[in-house]
Amino acid sequence: MDIANEVRVLCESAKRASHSIALASEDKKNKLLSRIAELLLENAESIISANKLDLASAEENGVAKAMLDRLMINDSRIKGIADSLYSVVALDDPIGKGDVWSRPSGITLRRVRVPLGVVGMIYEARPNVTVDSAALCLKTGNAVVLRGGKEAINTNKEFVRSIKLALSECGFDEGAVGLITSTSRESANALMSMRGLVDVLIPRGGKGLIRACVENSKVPVIETGAGNCHLYVDESADLEKALKIAVNAKCSRPSVCNAIETVLVHRAVAEKFLPMLKSAFDGYSVEIRGCADSCEILEGIKLATEEDFETEFDDYIVALGIVDSLDEAIEHINKYSTGHSEAIVTENMKSADRFQNEIDSVAVYVNASTRFTDGGEFGFGAEIGISTQKLHVRGPMGLYALTTEKYLVTGDGAVR
Amino acid sequence: MDIANEVRVLCESAKRASHSIALASEDKKNKLLSRIAELLLENAESIISANKLDLASAEENGVAKAMLDRLMINDSRIKGIADSLYSVVALDDPIGKGDVWSRPSGITLRRVRVPLGVVGMIYEARPNVTVDSAALCLKTGNAVVLRGGKEAINTNKEFVRSIKLALSECGFDEGAVGLITSTSRESANALMSMRGLVDVLIPRGGKGLIRACVENSKVPVIETGAGNCHLYVDESADLEKALKIAVNAKCSRPSVCNAIETVLVHRAVAEKFLPMLKSAFDGYSVEIRGCADSCEILEGIKLATEEDFETEFDDYIVALGIVDSLDEAIEHINKYSTGHSEAIVTENMKSADRFQNEIDSVAVYVNASTRFTDGGEFGFGAEIGISTQKLHVRGPMGLYALTTEKYLVTGDGAVR
Repeated sequence: MDIANEVRVLCESAKRASHSIALASEDKKNKLLSRIAELLLENAESIISANKLDLASAEENGVAKAMLDRLMINDSRIKGIADSLYSVVALDDPIGKGDVWSRPSGITLRRVRVPLGVVGMIYEARPNVTVDSAALCLKTGNAVVLRGGKEAINTNKEFVRSIKLALSECGFDEGAVGLITSTSRESANALMSMRGLVDVLIPRGGKGLIRACVENSKVPVIETGAGNCHLYVDESADLEKALKIAVNAKCSRPSVCNAIETVLVHRAVAEKFLPMLKSAFDGYSVEIRGCADSCEILEGIKLATEEDFETEFDDYIVALGIVDSLDEAIEHINKYSTGHSEAIVTENMKSADRFQNEIDSVAVYVNASTRFTDGGEFGFGAEIGISTQKLHVRGPMGLYALTTEKYLVTGDGAVR
Repeated sequence: MDIANEVRVLCESAKRASHSIALASEDKKNKLLSRIAELLLENAESIISANKLDLASAEENGVAKAMLDRLMINDSRIKGIADSLYSVVALDDPIGKGDVWSRPSGITLRRVRVPLGVVGMIYEARPNVTVDSAALCLKTGNAVVLRGGKEAINTNKEFVRSIKLALSECGFDEGAVGLITSTSRESANALMSMRGLVDVLIPRGGKGLIRACVENSKVPVIETGAGNCHLYVDESADLEKALKIAVNAKCSRPSVCNAIETVLVHRAVAEKFLPMLKSAFDGYSVEIRGCADSCEILEGIKLATEEDFETEFDDYIVALGIVDSLDEAIEHINKYSTGHSEAIVTENMKSADRFQNEIDSVAVYVNASTRFTDGGEFGFGAEIGISTQKLHVRGPMGLYALTTEKYLVTGDGAVR
């Protein structure tokens, strides 16, 4: 069977399965998720073996250190994945919820949340996305077709084996979760062309992947997560706070989308702050690529190129720029940002307000780390991704993002 | 200046204007809308003269009767448009509304509604869309770039002249509302390519227009309004109700998207209902195109082709089919429908429930006319279109549909 055909068959199975899972009760869906958690824990050994194969080929292919961390699965991470399944069980199911009202014309309207139908996911290295996505889709009565990256294919196959077993044990159609086993560009393109079978496509990964989906997909796309995030240290910043936030936002997990890639510093505090920053970043072996002015203050750092300011490094690398004003910082950020998360450190509330109002990103922080942009940290429970587009939902996407609405209208012969 | 350039310049002006209108107070925006209403009434004479030019060329080009009705502007319709501006003034502005919560991590989140930015509209004959769209966009702090149809170009220019005058009188940037004067396909394509300048594209019109936007646009699209709507008369229907609903849904305004295009009748009531239906439809000169079985009951009607069941006639034409069961009716509708509005007439509540649950359309009616699918009839105030897609918003789109959200997060050095 060729690749386009494999994808079409999986999507058709998902479409068929979507009709029955859409009508399943919350209780039945929760039992399914709990059973998936149990089976993942039971099958930990075979999952970790499969993951070792993936890690070995990734290392062979010279994959970056931060990326290897994203790919790795061990006992404690499986425990974490199972815990996140239980946390999805604990979340309220939005399906069927809604409101009712009547109109003078004689009609009564019920607006109810319904599943989107079939969700397509295209993602890269992190295999936990496989389970997290399936859990959120199933909880909201959606079927899902997964197309993960080649780096994690063995791990993903093991995960989906447990999920399908749980589906079947709990009386669901196994087609509700499909994994595309081909990880070529052709299989991604095939999934993007499944208009009529797939209701929404959610890409998770780097800028290139997101752009390819946005530009080529015939299926509606939710743009997610490309995160060229910025930290701006204002002239009135508390430099100790600034340092703590910079280190957290860059070094606590550099491979994720809410980590910062560029630090901008007001010229008035640059002489003092830059050496503090370099000394802290040296402790994490962060490579600093600075503008010409910052290279004069910090001897021996690399000169940043235009491209460095455009890049989501996802690694222990940071771009550094000195700016003359808040305006210059805002302009720089609105030019280079992917619209994800940006932070200002300042004790001047006027500057804070202007920064929050004029920066057009999902989350705009004052005196806090960009690392908080996350469904769990925001209090939404699990997330299927972070939308950086303006339509449908913006920011961390929980269960609600996987639903749409429908109007059920009744009358007794009402006409307009 | 070539067409692509004209479009780019208008979009750049809109983008610039969007920054200031986004920050305007509700009061200031309401004054603007009221002033537009006043100016339209003052300029009624020149608007109607321009509209006469449009009507004359449309008639010359053999435009269908129902379409001429959509195009026509007279004093009472200008009064109606002014009234709808005042009704937008009366609606609550969603901008800046939202909620606030804190997290144990030490951050406080404010989630606020913000404008989308720049809205692109591509639409066909109805010139009132020009004013309605501008009003809804301006009220929500958005700029808008309008690309109407060639049939209404003179009327649209007059409308936009009044709008720009009001913008300038009220201290706004005139670029906030732009009208593309070229009505070629090239200008539509240029607007679809303005990614980065235009935040969302809302096409309003026939199936061909919508499909062209969905397939070609690089800007996110909200699919609207193509309405191949159905009425199903169940075996347990009250036939008087069915007749009243059929006549209302087909004949009260056949050119609009929530009018029905196909009537399906259960075989058990066909012998009795079809002659009633024909006699009522004859009073409105509705041409009936029936399936083979209905042609045996109603002598002299035209035999329907497959294409007739796929067609949104927007005219005094209806397709008619006899079905053997509720299942067959549901299957037919899910196959041919554009997902807009469908109705069942039945006294059997089990059939009603099944119909509402299994039909995957925006609005599913029991014993009521599909003509109710409308922002005003649903109680939302004005609407900018009826979304037939599942993402962002489904059904009649009011002010809320023209906004997105943003998270403003504050801490005091909070890190994760």
